[in-house]
Amino acid sequence: MFREKIKVLDCTIRDGGLINNHYFTDEFVRAVYKSLSEAGIDYMEMGYRSSRTFASAASYGPWKYCDDDKISQIIDGIKSDTKISIMVDAHRVGDQEFRPVDQSPVDMIRVATYVKDIDKAIAMTQKAHDLGYETAVNIMAVSAENERDLVEALDQLAATPADVIYIVDSYGYFFCEQIEYMAHLYRQHLPGKELGIHCHNNQQLAFANTVEGIIHNVNYVDASLYGIGRGAGNCPLELVMGFLKNPKFNLTPILKVIQDYMMPMLKELEWGYLIPYMVTGILNKHPESAISMRKTADKDKYAEFYEKIRDSLDAL
Amino acid sequence: MFREKIKVLDCTIRDGGLINNHYFTDEFVRAVYKSLSEAGIDYMEMGYRSSRTFASAASYGPWKYCDDDKISQIIDGIKSDTKISIMVDAHRVGDQEFRPVDQSPVDMIRVATYVKDIDKAIAMTQKAHDLGYETAVNIMAVSAENERDLVEALDQLAATPADVIYIVDSYGYFFCEQIEYMAHLYRQHLPGKELGIHCHNNQQLAFANTVEGIIHNVNYVDASLYGIGRGAGNCPLELVMGFLKNPKFNLTPILKVIQDYMMPMLKELEWGYLIPYMVTGILNKHPESAISMRKTADKDKYAEFYEKIRDSLDAL
Repeated sequence: MFREKIKVLDCTIRDGGLINNHYFTDEFVRAVYKSLSEAGIDYMEMGYRSSRTFASAASYGPWKYCDDDKISQIIDGIKSDTKISIMVDAHRVGDQEFRPVDQSPVDMIRVATYVKDIDKAIAMTQKAHDLGYETAVNIMAVSAENERDLVEALDQLAATPADVIYIVDSYGYFFCEQIEYMAHLYRQHLPGKELGIHCHNNQQLAFANTVEGIIHNVNYVDASLYGIGRGAGNCPLELVMGFLKNPKFNLTPILKVIQDYMMPMLKELEWGYLIPYMVTGILNKHPESAISMRKTADKDKYAEFYEKIRDSLDAL
Repeated sequence: MFREKIKVLDCTIRDGGLINNHYFTDEFVRAVYKSLSEAGIDYMEMGYRSSRTFASAASYGPWKYCDDDKISQIIDGIKSDTKISIMVDAHRVGDQEFRPVDQSPVDMIRVATYVKDIDKAIAMTQKAHDLGYETAVNIMAVSAENERDLVEALDQLAATPADVIYIVDSYGYFFCEQIEYMAHLYRQHLPGKELGIHCHNNQQLAFANTVEGIIHNVNYVDASLYGIGRGAGNCPLELVMGFLKNPKFNLTPILKVIQDYMMPMLKELEWGYLIPYMVTGILNKHPESAISMRKTADKDKYAEFYEKIRDSLDAL
């Protein structure tokens, strides 16, 4: 599958940072940037531009804030055509600062939002656009949204300068037919906009659903090294590269950074397919309950966890 | 997705046995049978009925031979509606014996074959059918077969008493559109026959491709506990159960046997998604080279392995 318009965004540092409070070392972030650059990946997302008022600097590493100067220091001296993106949570906007694009290493600002915060997301998107950035809006957890509300949000977004609108399966609930449905719904309500997709791997469907999105004309694709990300993680970048036949891609540097950094990291951080994440996925719930239970002595009591979560839903 | 005709076959012991030369303990096999029975799974595949001439009893455990009396001993006293299947390799038929079905605990005989051995497979299928067994033919590695040869084999099979013909993605190469294509091809050439699907997880697509098969009217579905199977393994049974909404299924006993047996086993046996298996998958090759390299000191030199396999193909 080669379609030149397809852009791949690596969210290793951003989504992976949700596992370790964004405490990746400079050496690692630089190694990732170097390998993505050599591999021909279109975008690297460095993390969040969070407010230090809402998120105390005592509790988080540098990739929670993604200061321009920090990013510049990391990428300094590395030959690259890879663009830089950062993410902002629409519901947690405070004292963040954004320089005009020509004074920043950042190329794209992606606004993550729930449907309920769409007006905040639009305001932030407009601001980023006016400063010269490429802009994207990632509507999270759409599998759990009321469809009429979602459609209203899409119709609002159609009238904004946002370049890309993402389908985000935060809970890893969707299977292929639902991705197809969403891609058509977004297409219908967002004429002229690019669509993006961000999948989670609770049911081992992140890559399959990403391919499904691509088949239905989604052109912006999120992935991460060896699928790193909160809970079950994301669509593995190496699989996306194996699928896309764009001759500009080079898989070797990606496999190199996986063997040198991701495999050792997997001994210290947990991500990927595990039964508790599968359980929240099939039940269309936020992975928080699974992440919590994985920190307890009962972390491998799968049957008990499943019955507890299922029964709590049945009791509603 | 609830379609009553869908039958789920667990191949934990059979495909998993390829990792440990079929040396599963009686206790484990009995625990699997009990949990599948409680969960409402339709079939359990116990292993191979191999010839002791071709496969010396000194080198393999009991599930390489699946003697009727051995199976009877395992299932004795367990209340169950789960049928038993065994597999026979068409190209390795020797001194195996088959009792008439009413003197055997086995319900179904599945014949695994390459296209080149289709005539042997048909002879074995006829023999099993005449003895009263349900019969299936699993055509392996179809992603690497010449399509005209495959079609000829399908046309031959159409005239046999085989109940089910399986699409087998031995190399884990296919993505959804190719499964759809195969399902239509099989349907067209096998009027009136049930179709089955057996996927491998090299690209984390085993479950997604199984769902794709189901969407395109495949009714026999192979899966295994936590995806156990040679190399990248199979479609995880727990995911299939989460997808199928047949009220007869009960997920709890499956999660219980995974936590009690599969997770400890994963510390001793290797299966599942790993980069070397992904490499053979995207290159449409048998996993043997990846399985071998995983037994060497260079088992985590992914980039090197990829370049070696890729270059060996480019040199052809």
